[in-house]
Amino acid sequence: MDPDLKNRLLVAGGLALMAPLALQNAAVPAAAAKKPNIVFFLVDDYGWVDSEVPYDGHNYPAHLRFHTPNMVRMAEMGVRFSHAYASPVSTPTRTSIMTGMNAVHSHITNWTSMAKDEPSDAVGGTNGAMTYDQIAASTGMDRPEWNYNGICPERFRPDSAALGLNHIQWASPMVQFLRDAGYYTIHVGKAHWASAGTPGASPLNMGFVINIAGSSAGLPKSYLSEDNYGNTPEKWNLSAVQNLYEYYGTGTFLTEAITREALKALDWPVEHRQPFYLYLSHFATHTPIQKDKRFFRRYKDMGQDDGQSRYASMVEGVDKSLGDVLDYLEANGLSDNTIIIFMADNGGNADVKSKGGVPHTQNAPLREGKGSCYEGGIRVPMSVYWPGKTSAGSIIDAPVMPEDLFPTILEMAGVKKYGTVQQVDGRSLVPLLKGRQSGWQRDVIFHYPHQWKPEYRREVDFLSTIIRDEWKLVYVMKERKLELYNLKEDIGETRDLSASYPDEVAELARALGDRLRSWNASMPVDRATGLPVPMPDEI
Amino acid sequence: MDPDLKNRLLVAGGLALMAPLALQNAAVPAAAAKKPNIVFFLVDDYGWVDSEVPYDGHNYPAHLRFHTPNMVRMAEMGVRFSHAYASPVSTPTRTSIMTGMNAVHSHITNWTSMAKDEPSDAVGGTNGAMTYDQIAASTGMDRPEWNYNGICPERFRPDSAALGLNHIQWASPMVQFLRDAGYYTIHVGKAHWASAGTPGASPLNMGFVINIAGSSAGLPKSYLSEDNYGNTPEKWNLSAVQNLYEYYGTGTFLTEAITREALKALDWPVEHRQPFYLYLSHFATHTPIQKDKRFFRRYKDMGQDDGQSRYASMVEGVDKSLGDVLDYLEANGLSDNTIIIFMADNGGNADVKSKGGVPHTQNAPLREGKGSCYEGGIRVPMSVYWPGKTSAGSIIDAPVMPEDLFPTILEMAGVKKYGTVQQVDGRSLVPLLKGRQSGWQRDVIFHYPHQWKPEYRREVDFLSTIIRDEWKLVYVMKERKLELYNLKEDIGETRDLSASYPDEVAELARALGDRLRSWNASMPVDRATGLPVPMPDEI
Repeated sequence: MDPDLKNRLLVAGGLALMAPLALQNAAVPAAAAKKPNIVFFLVDDYGWVDSEVPYDGHNYPAHLRFHTPNMVRMAEMGVRFSHAYASPVSTPTRTSIMTGMNAVHSHITNWTSMAKDEPSDAVGGTNGAMTYDQIAASTGMDRPEWNYNGICPERFRPDSAALGLNHIQWASPMVQFLRDAGYYTIHVGKAHWASAGTPGASPLNMGFVINIAGSSAGLPKSYLSEDNYGNTPEKWNLSAVQNLYEYYGTGTFLTEAITREALKALDWPVEHRQPFYLYLSHFATHTPIQKDKRFFRRYKDMGQDDGQSRYASMVEGVDKSLGDVLDYLEANGLSDNTIIIFMADNGGNADVKSKGGVPHTQNAPLREGKGSCYEGGIRVPMSVYWPGKTSAGSIIDAPVMPEDLFPTILEMAGVKKYGTVQQVDGRSLVPLLKGRQSGWQRDVIFHYPHQWKPEYRREVDFLSTIIRDEWKLVYVMKERKLELYNLKEDIGETRDLSASYPDEVAELARALGDRLRSWNASMPVDRATGLPVPMPDEI
Repeated sequence: MDPDLKNRLLVAGGLALMAPLALQNAAVPAAAAKKPNIVFFLVDDYGWVDSEVPYDGHNYPAHLRFHTPNMVRMAEMGVRFSHAYASPVSTPTRTSIMTGMNAVHSHITNWTSMAKDEPSDAVGGTNGAMTYDQIAASTGMDRPEWNYNGICPERFRPDSAALGLNHIQWASPMVQFLRDAGYYTIHVGKAHWASAGTPGASPLNMGFVINIAGSSAGLPKSYLSEDNYGNTPEKWNLSAVQNLYEYYGTGTFLTEAITREALKALDWPVEHRQPFYLYLSHFATHTPIQKDKRFFRRYKDMGQDDGQSRYASMVEGVDKSLGDVLDYLEANGLSDNTIIIFMADNGGNADVKSKGGVPHTQNAPLREGKGSCYEGGIRVPMSVYWPGKTSAGSIIDAPVMPEDLFPTILEMAGVKKYGTVQQVDGRSLVPLLKGRQSGWQRDVIFHYPHQWKPEYRREVDFLSTIIRDEWKLVYVMKERKLELYNLKEDIGETRDLSASYPDEVAELARALGDRLRSWNASMPVDRATGLPVPMPDEI
């Protein structure tokens, strides 16, 4: 990675500068005294190459599979990140944004179950053919202690015993600070910060004034209004999507329903000139991979298989949603004072047959996908438009992490004083967004001490990683093995250089070990010894 | 009924005047320039005698079965109505409040089904042992044409064909006018204005800024957090209560959860000094009649049967909720500028075994209960507190109807100009509330051209009624028979005086017939002839 981290103009992918030059690096306009609105547009299980936008300026073949004019429009308006990272699975990214904590530190390193007190390790285990115990016996690896009930707002701590709360990370939620600062805070879509039966399951306890459809569920039971989004006797479980009665049976795809509800919710603060924070958190493109009929045909006509066409149709549904939001802001004269953050919560899912394509390759050139600490699981699309601040169409190469959004959003909103019960690990991206990248340095650390699915998979389960500049170390915990990759020369992580660069390995292993120790990381347990696996610098 | 309709001081039931005399009939205070907040506290299937409050100033034995200190507190603060009427079932009352239309006029004379295009006549039929057709054959009476999908906001009319909307009453919703006037409008609890798959199913289309738990369902699948309020694989159907994930398994009775959510929702407008309209619409005390553990013991200890104890515990849960709201208003300094309307949507359910007591007698001295046009089905508790306007502790004897709330609420809110697509039949209660009852005259008209349950019941099914002063005419459509009662002398409707007062019968039959004709009333169909049953003045 280029240590100078200069902005590069967007030249690849057929994109052109769109914003008037006058807006770039403009002096603070008079209107800036007014609090900016913020739209956080989050996409689920959505891969780095799954659009027409070349996030690092290179065109990859995968881009040709998608039609995403509004993501292109967004990238042209704002800056995009070539090295935006997220946790390998959903919840840790979401809780890191909400708390500013690294997932290792919060001990929320896996997704939270819909119901309380059900660790999600190797799920399919308890529901499937094998028990969790049988699965763990087969790998010799036991799940660590971790906060599998997610985050909980600090003010509920006095009720902790009465509510039977445990395996909780107490926190002062970011959105509460926005609300306290006068923001009208709207939650629409997927929440997934905590399990049912705990206060964190409700966005209304996180500082949101409005909640539509947010719950403890990490996926929608169905995207189809024909299924009432899962609200039928045959389909129903806790992931059936709530608050959408009016759309049942109307042919409205979930992504569209969610979008309409978001725009409806915006009307109040817009009419009353209150600054707003809209967290539009799409369920798409998480499984189930279902056909968005409005767009499916295009991809079949391109010759793509059914699964890929279904997935691409869901992506285009998200793209249309983004366009609808941008159009709403323009139509209401809000574009000049509304920040837009677009990102995904983890890498594209490469381990699901219904998506089509060849499993584990759909994120190429990135290796692997969701669940994995290889790049396919953690490198995500991200772009930000900050009127008058971001330089239209440029690329930021600095590596960024979900916890950075906590201080970033509060700083952009002008919220300066806030006290948190948790220690905030994230770092404000404001300098980067304003084009000041020199001196930016950070280690990217992800840690997945879990087995994702019932079948052990070396490329996914029990991995940790640290990325420093172009170097990336992967700790394969089950094998007590360290791998080293040079991301600048080998974005696909195809050549393990650990044998050739022992000094780099040792340095990164120590840095990763130090971090894991300082955060008292959850470590999987070796069944043979009953002891946690060693730190990467102790093997 | 006393034609002079004078206020009477509250002397029965051990109640005493509480509000300072200075407040009574006070001149408009300076603060009145500020828009008053409004709390509409609606209780479901809740009988006229099911509290310690004697709504007509008389103590009836039933009052002894309940402990309702906050309803007493409310009655002491405000005025109460001895002759507040509501439709025999839920939806027509709710749609009349929202549209200002009499239910005959809107052709929403029965409750709307959870799913679209399913007339609810004789329900149990299509789900039960007999088909609807078999039931209709057994009575010789067929359901009328009616708007069984409920109301729909006018602005969706252009989408009518695309959405497949029919059997809809188009309307300009009352709450939308409040919102347009700057009110922060909150919906918590039961909505039940329209069926799923139609826009009216969502409170957010009716002018509400916030919706918690409101849907097309007319009852909660369960009040128990142990059942996740119906959100379990065994229990679930469309009446499972939404938006309450955080309470699952916590031991929180639904009434309490709904109340907490309502108070949480109030925080935003209170903090931002926006006038609010809180529609707190409890599912209680609708079936299922379930034990609110916090209060059940008291009633068992009084020697009541299990069913009655369960019901009374649910009533006390509602009473506690009312108290929590009153306390919240006081704690936040809002009591002096907040109007509170307390009422029930129809009479107490007297046809459900789980409620205990002797079926069809629980509303004594009133005859019958929910579903019926006899007093037990339509006379409901109602009290109103309007700071500085209502005379504390007094009773208003004027007969009032649900559609009256439409112009009343808008007038109290200071909303003077509004155009509706529907014709508003209701009449503002403001003069009554201010103590000016002279000259108040109105016919009370209810019309239930339906069979409520699969088993025909003469006291419930296919009835119409008109009440004028002390006289009440009941039209038993199946029998083409007219009954006459004197409510002043015979509140229990035990003596049919039709043979003795033929002139009164003729006059009321004509008045009822005229009204039904002018509103093009839905009439049941005689299977033998295929023709609608005749009007009451045509038999």
